[in-house]
Amino acid sequence: MASQGEKGELHKKIDQLEKENRRLRVLLDVANSLQAELELDKLLFKIMEEVAEILDADRCTVFLYDKERNELWSLVAMGLQKGEEIRFPADKGIAGHVAQTGEILNIPDAYQDPRFNPEIDKKTGYRTRSILTMPLYNKMHEIIGVFQILNKRNGPFTKDDENLLAAISQIAATAIENAQLYDEQVKSLDSFIETLSATLDTRDYITAGHSRRVTEYTLALADAMGVDEEFKRQLRYAGLLHDIGKLKIPESVLFKADKLTPEEFEIIKLHPQVTREILSKIHFQRKLKDVPEIAATHHERLDGTGYPEGLKGEEIPFGGRMICLVDVFDALTSERQYRDRAPLEKVWDIVEKETGTTFDPRCVEAFKTIPAGRIIEIMEHQRQEDFNQAEIERLYQVPIIDIIEIKRKAPESRTPQESEILETFDKYYWRDY
Amino acid sequence: MASQGEKGELHKKIDQLEKENRRLRVLLDVANSLQAELELDKLLFKIMEEVAEILDADRCTVFLYDKERNELWSLVAMGLQKGEEIRFPADKGIAGHVAQTGEILNIPDAYQDPRFNPEIDKKTGYRTRSILTMPLYNKMHEIIGVFQILNKRNGPFTKDDENLLAAISQIAATAIENAQLYDEQVKSLDSFIETLSATLDTRDYITAGHSRRVTEYTLALADAMGVDEEFKRQLRYAGLLHDIGKLKIPESVLFKADKLTPEEFEIIKLHPQVTREILSKIHFQRKLKDVPEIAATHHERLDGTGYPEGLKGEEIPFGGRMICLVDVFDALTSERQYRDRAPLEKVWDIVEKETGTTFDPRCVEAFKTIPAGRIIEIMEHQRQEDFNQAEIERLYQVPIIDIIEIKRKAPESRTPQESEILETFDKYYWRDY
Repeated sequence: MASQGEKGELHKKIDQLEKENRRLRVLLDVANSLQAELELDKLLFKIMEEVAEILDADRCTVFLYDKERNELWSLVAMGLQKGEEIRFPADKGIAGHVAQTGEILNIPDAYQDPRFNPEIDKKTGYRTRSILTMPLYNKMHEIIGVFQILNKRNGPFTKDDENLLAAISQIAATAIENAQLYDEQVKSLDSFIETLSATLDTRDYITAGHSRRVTEYTLALADAMGVDEEFKRQLRYAGLLHDIGKLKIPESVLFKADKLTPEEFEIIKLHPQVTREILSKIHFQRKLKDVPEIAATHHERLDGTGYPEGLKGEEIPFGGRMICLVDVFDALTSERQYRDRAPLEKVWDIVEKETGTTFDPRCVEAFKTIPAGRIIEIMEHQRQEDFNQAEIERLYQVPIIDIIEIKRKAPESRTPQESEILETFDKYYWRDY
Repeated sequence: MASQGEKGELHKKIDQLEKENRRLRVLLDVANSLQAELELDKLLFKIMEEVAEILDADRCTVFLYDKERNELWSLVAMGLQKGEEIRFPADKGIAGHVAQTGEILNIPDAYQDPRFNPEIDKKTGYRTRSILTMPLYNKMHEIIGVFQILNKRNGPFTKDDENLLAAISQIAATAIENAQLYDEQVKSLDSFIETLSATLDTRDYITAGHSRRVTEYTLALADAMGVDEEFKRQLRYAGLLHDIGKLKIPESVLFKADKLTPEEFEIIKLHPQVTREILSKIHFQRKLKDVPEIAATHHERLDGTGYPEGLKGEEIPFGGRMICLVDVFDALTSERQYRDRAPLEKVWDIVEKETGTTFDPRCVEAFKTIPAGRIIEIMEHQRQEDFNQAEIERLYQVPIIDIIEIKRKAPESRTPQESEILETFDKYYWRDY
């Protein structure tokens, strides 16, 4: 016969085990969930949401420690706009105190604590009550950030909350470090491609800045078409690298300001093929696998008379057709040593004449809808500090085709508004500022 | 009063909870452990070891599914040498069956199962008894690989083993995918730098292959000095990129085969500074942060008479001093349009003369110990298919300084062995094969 006491003990044990079980399940869920996200900003957002929910609190913020600048920062904070960043010296406020000392602070009433800085509450109208703040350590036991949880729903944070958060911190810290390492790698490749492209751009005084502008126009066109982020990333790399094949064209031909001989033109025409050869040797990640093909087809023409392959219509990847259009647009609207940019309406006459033969009509249609302000920003990038922002914003209200059509009208048949917007546009197009 | 039956129920419940608790702890440990490893080969090895231990089995192998080649492969398998790779068609054997069907196979006695292929046992002398094989799914429920566990220590694998392995599989699959993504990123940057360097190398017919050889000599020197892998990675990137600044030197100066005018030489001397400018714009990961500085100091001289900074002695990063030496060595031992490579003993006279003024004596000392075979392999890389491998191996037994010293002796005072090794070396040095 079991005594009542014995039974009580057993029930107590079961309660304990069940509690521990729930705790382990939560941790395992957290581990699985965090592990699945390798992109730093998404990961941080996920951590903040999950931890607030698990601890039944109102808000959670992960502050990361930026060692070089000795600052704490948070990329996306709950209650702020996505993309906003908070950044402050690593010795300020509660989070700073925790980052400096490694102490865990469990504060039941923020306004009773002298370390609490009520400034942010004043700005945001939020009312902080309880705070739980805990350091985040990496494997080498260096502080890499701070967890801050605000306003537990029922009373202050408990010792159990502290323990659970400590266990979550471990899991989160590794996930954050992985995401940071991944992020660094992505940034390395990205900055390498961008720097190389910019270097090649400045090397050629005739077409200085060409690859950069082609890339920006292509992305403007992509936005006009509403393509997805993954395709945009491919377009960006293909744009930056489309002329990399020119590395193997002799400068005496490449930088010749005069008209090329037919033989020299044949040499120039080798460059998209060389672009393909170079890019196809690069181990692009799966999401970027079309970059070489897009970059290498920017001189193909819809009717099959382009080079190097003479591809026709749908044989040309859509990204190649996009770059083909903006490449010509940039060539015609760029200054040259020996001439100013061509008048925009003449440029567009040429584009329209070639629509359906050289250019894909869908690209041309979408290009028309790009805001004139964006075109000017790209075209005149190097003079951006002289821009009048109000005027540029005004030009953002008008698609580029409207400017072209106003230009095509006889001056006397333009409305005053039309004359005014055209004057603003021409001011930048002809650099009269 | 509680009845005996009630008490039994409570104990049963406690047992269950304790068992579940242990299971959750194991899974959490696995999650923490796997999450901490972002390098694919180390991760796979860790998974294999941990799973074998947890399931009390003799061996575990993770086969990854290579979709493009429709093959299963394992980079490091328990019981194989590190670095060895198993690879077979994705429809072969037990693992292939599981990869194709997604079935879980729990086989108590392999030799009773017709799908089992005893060939590998025959080769290795290993005796397979029980097998548990399970598919690995990613988040999109695509099969990314197969878990195979061999020879449970006490009897066949149980249903509990299956359940535990299924839960581990989920954790492992995400860790593997993260590591693969990271791996892809590393490979992207690496292949980009390598391809760019090779492109710049072939562009200049005068010094074709220079950056490649400089990189290889630097790594040979690094091996002679026993530096760590991380420093070697920096040296490799710095070697591949040390002349990237030449991108901004006009070809008319850069590719001039005749003697340069003093003005032209001043232009050439700008290149390490441009290398620094280009590389400093790149967001290298922390482990690679010295690459720009190493690459930009390859024309500094120990006595401070080098360029662009005129740095002295310890002010020059050690990597820069290494590249400085091999850069000169390569220039002197390369063919030019207008001359063959210089005799090795003359090259070394120049190096010795400049030791302590241009070159760091420690680099020179270490260079002497590089195997002659390795020097020939680097120098004559493009003709490697014409090599007699036995001769190259023979040259691997001799440090390069021995060849130099034999060359410096009068022919009549050389031993027959010395004459023989010199003849072999000269055959490749003077391309008489």
